[in-house]
Amino acid sequence: MRKSPSLWLAILAFGLCSLTAWRRPDPRAQAILEAVANYRRQHEMTILRELADFLSIPNVATDREDIWRNARHLAAMLRRRGARTRFLSIGQSPPVVYGELRAPGAHRTIILYAHYDGQPVVPALWESDPWQPVLKDERGRPIPWSSLSSPVNGEWRLYARSASDDKAPIVAILAAIDALRAAGIPLSVNVKFLFEGEEEAGSPHLPEIIETYADLLRADVLLICDGPVHQTRRMQVFFGARGVVDLEMTVYGPVRPLHSGHYGNWAPNPAILLAHLLASMRDREARILIDGFYDDVRPLTETERRALAEHPHIDARLRRALGLARTEGEGRPLVEQIMRPAMNIRGLESGRVGAQARNVIPTEARASIDFRLVPDQTPDRVRSLVEAHIRRQGFFIVHQTPDMEIRRAHANIVKLTWGPGYPPARTSMDLPVSRVVVRVVEEAVGGPIIKLPTLGGSGPMYLFLDVLKVPAIGVPIVNHDNNQHAPNENLRLQNLWDGITIYAHLLGRLGEAWESTKSRADAAK
Amino acid sequence: MRKSPSLWLAILAFGLCSLTAWRRPDPRAQAILEAVANYRRQHEMTILRELADFLSIPNVATDREDIWRNARHLAAMLRRRGARTRFLSIGQSPPVVYGELRAPGAHRTIILYAHYDGQPVVPALWESDPWQPVLKDERGRPIPWSSLSSPVNGEWRLYARSASDDKAPIVAILAAIDALRAAGIPLSVNVKFLFEGEEEAGSPHLPEIIETYADLLRADVLLICDGPVHQTRRMQVFFGARGVVDLEMTVYGPVRPLHSGHYGNWAPNPAILLAHLLASMRDREARILIDGFYDDVRPLTETERRALAEHPHIDARLRRALGLARTEGEGRPLVEQIMRPAMNIRGLESGRVGAQARNVIPTEARASIDFRLVPDQTPDRVRSLVEAHIRRQGFFIVHQTPDMEIRRAHANIVKLTWGPGYPPARTSMDLPVSRVVVRVVEEAVGGPIIKLPTLGGSGPMYLFLDVLKVPAIGVPIVNHDNNQHAPNENLRLQNLWDGITIYAHLLGRLGEAWESTKSRADAAK
Repeated sequence: MRKSPSLWLAILAFGLCSLTAWRRPDPRAQAILEAVANYRRQHEMTILRELADFLSIPNVATDREDIWRNARHLAAMLRRRGARTRFLSIGQSPPVVYGELRAPGAHRTIILYAHYDGQPVVPALWESDPWQPVLKDERGRPIPWSSLSSPVNGEWRLYARSASDDKAPIVAILAAIDALRAAGIPLSVNVKFLFEGEEEAGSPHLPEIIETYADLLRADVLLICDGPVHQTRRMQVFFGARGVVDLEMTVYGPVRPLHSGHYGNWAPNPAILLAHLLASMRDREARILIDGFYDDVRPLTETERRALAEHPHIDARLRRALGLARTEGEGRPLVEQIMRPAMNIRGLESGRVGAQARNVIPTEARASIDFRLVPDQTPDRVRSLVEAHIRRQGFFIVHQTPDMEIRRAHANIVKLTWGPGYPPARTSMDLPVSRVVVRVVEEAVGGPIIKLPTLGGSGPMYLFLDVLKVPAIGVPIVNHDNNQHAPNENLRLQNLWDGITIYAHLLGRLGEAWESTKSRADAAK
Repeated sequence: MRKSPSLWLAILAFGLCSLTAWRRPDPRAQAILEAVANYRRQHEMTILRELADFLSIPNVATDREDIWRNARHLAAMLRRRGARTRFLSIGQSPPVVYGELRAPGAHRTIILYAHYDGQPVVPALWESDPWQPVLKDERGRPIPWSSLSSPVNGEWRLYARSASDDKAPIVAILAAIDALRAAGIPLSVNVKFLFEGEEEAGSPHLPEIIETYADLLRADVLLICDGPVHQTRRMQVFFGARGVVDLEMTVYGPVRPLHSGHYGNWAPNPAILLAHLLASMRDREARILIDGFYDDVRPLTETERRALAEHPHIDARLRRALGLARTEGEGRPLVEQIMRPAMNIRGLESGRVGAQARNVIPTEARASIDFRLVPDQTPDRVRSLVEAHIRRQGFFIVHQTPDMEIRRAHANIVKLTWGPGYPPARTSMDLPVSRVVVRVVEEAVGGPIIKLPTLGGSGPMYLFLDVLKVPAIGVPIVNHDNNQHAPNENLRLQNLWDGITIYAHLLGRLGEAWESTKSRADAAK
């Protein structure tokens, strides 16, 4: 049955009404949104220039001099906004750039976390210099900086290392502060800035820095300004991050490569041993077969399950884009699968393949694995479960390359090298602060956002929850297709514009929204 | 109980007697052995120099110009021994260097097969240039050619690609001819030389060359002068070679590397798919789990089983040398294991391991496999059994890299690339010629030799048995620990000296020993 035009109009009208009803526009919220939008439109060029200048400073965490240049530059950016700044570091570590902005009369304090270091680059794989930001239009044509004028198209992208991960959020926060100040809108919360300089190196000093400066870093909530928005381009907030622990496994065959004809069927083939071992650890549907592996998994709460159920259906589109006729997990959606622990084989290596292959029994076979953990798993417990499983498969575990004596004494030797790893963390979605952050962000974007109980990726979120003892919520703003950690990292400008809106709204509205939640809660008592 | 000196003497005397009794020293055999030994001692330097010159010519089968330099050089070496030579080739194939030496009055014709091409090299893995032969003493110290003088220590080794596989046997044959000629001892058989130039590339043209030149290559037996002596350093002859067929497998994941945190547990991990597939094909005890794989295996004969039972017990020593606490095949001896079909994983590759590893789901995972076949298996039948098995594991088989449409349409895609392969072959140990070759070689070495129904390695022996229709027997001379197909290939000089003795004895004695066998057989009728 074809619908008549009037029926379509009725449906459209109903849709608009429900959207309007949902928004419940608050006049003060409207004022902030309009003021910030105006400011941004008038200052696009200034904001872009500040970001491009910041991106021009190489920022690989291991390059000490570069990192310090970034840190000093960033501290100056903060001071221009009136923040008091300090460098927090341990020994020779890249400094955390710390800053503070007081909001007179505010009862709450938030920490804004971001990182200013970036992943190492392989410049040959980039289309342009990773540290010379290039703006390109929707069709990938470079736009000379000299010919740029406002309004800048939101679909254009800025290409540079850390354009998205994670300097854009820093610049968005600072532009948000500028916008509020220009409109005479006070901050609704005290703000502490915690801008890390070695996140991409695994945050080796962050635990000690956080412990050392625990008093300085006291706050009511920490917002993680890192990571991408949803693949649909819809805004999302996340309440957790999976833990991670890496494992390198080496299985041994004969001490020297042997002719497969003369010794095959007799000298143990390490590649087949490894294949059997890996197959015993995980099935083709992603289920981990290690005894007890799921025992510590905390069940999702009702609120978390509801958030997953509301998740947009993107799997079919993703499968198509990735060339996949099936997915792991017996067809369960991606968002459910990333709530579970995972075992990923990152690499295999043994002998040679293809034109380089020779008829030999390799001397060893290696696998590299990353385990993703969810609450309440811990790297220690996972290590011990995995090692117990490997022993049950008849392997003798070593942690150093075995010498001849050990090789002669033990069948099926495997060397295990564990990375340090870190535990998962998850802030309850039922906390008042969790609800209020969601509400303010939804107010900023004018519609429902996606709420992710746990991000699929890992981050040292446990440091905030377990060491600093403060709830942490991720409020990412950059585009999902930003090539983070890869060549040609980029930022879609509309994500920067939207990010300024969101962060400004959080800074301007969070305090009072939080108070009103508290008042309502008090009233309900 | 301690034995008295006189008892020891008695045992020694008994031992000498039985050895003497076994040897049945024939005066003519003794004369040949002594003449050849004398010649060799007087010409060590010349022989080594001829080998070193030959080894200085790079000989990877695919380097056409190099191969032709080898062929011309080799033909000239043959002509210096009075042989008429020809190049036999098909299209652009590396030539077979063919030669003939007539023995006036001889009733039998033998073909001596060897190959002058060598395995490709990775020079960085070699201690010295693979094409600049280096002589080293027992402790691995290089001996400058300029300081070399006779007698040269038999425990010294010559390092170069093809030092053992397979130029040394060629030089041993030619030195044997020189030695007989110097002593005025006539050849007892007509000799045809069949020196191949692409054995290491899988002998792709040899079938057609043999078919084309079948008349030229008529003979009563073909001796394969390739492969190593037994690990005990005892001489062995072999009557068969396993067939071989190579398989490259590529299993596919997502079309681009994906962040394991954001997409793991959902986007199929090709490495785990490959691990399960490999584990389904072969167990840890070397048993091939593919339905019907053993159906075509011809049982060993009584003579073959006896030969295996007489085999020296070397497994414990080998395990110790190779650093192995267990072997595959539920503890069965190596010699029994190489009589069976085998599946060897030559290589695995997926993503990265170790310091290069990243938290991504790899886009593909590869395995390289060689299957060893025994009579009456064929590559075609093995291919079809393997593919049927892989399909039963839920894979969709392609033979080209799948495009996006195929990837979207089929789960668990595997690309299979089969090498051409060749079938196994086995000459009956009960043939008169088999018995006489064993007898003459035992006469040359002065004791029992090892008789191997099938060599563990592969060679295109079926071409001789099935295409040329001539029995073929392997008479290898080089050391077992020669690093063939690997870096630092080498030849132990005593093996070269012994090889000259054996080949000279075969050339000088085989004809008459064969006739006497025939006479005895006739007399027995």
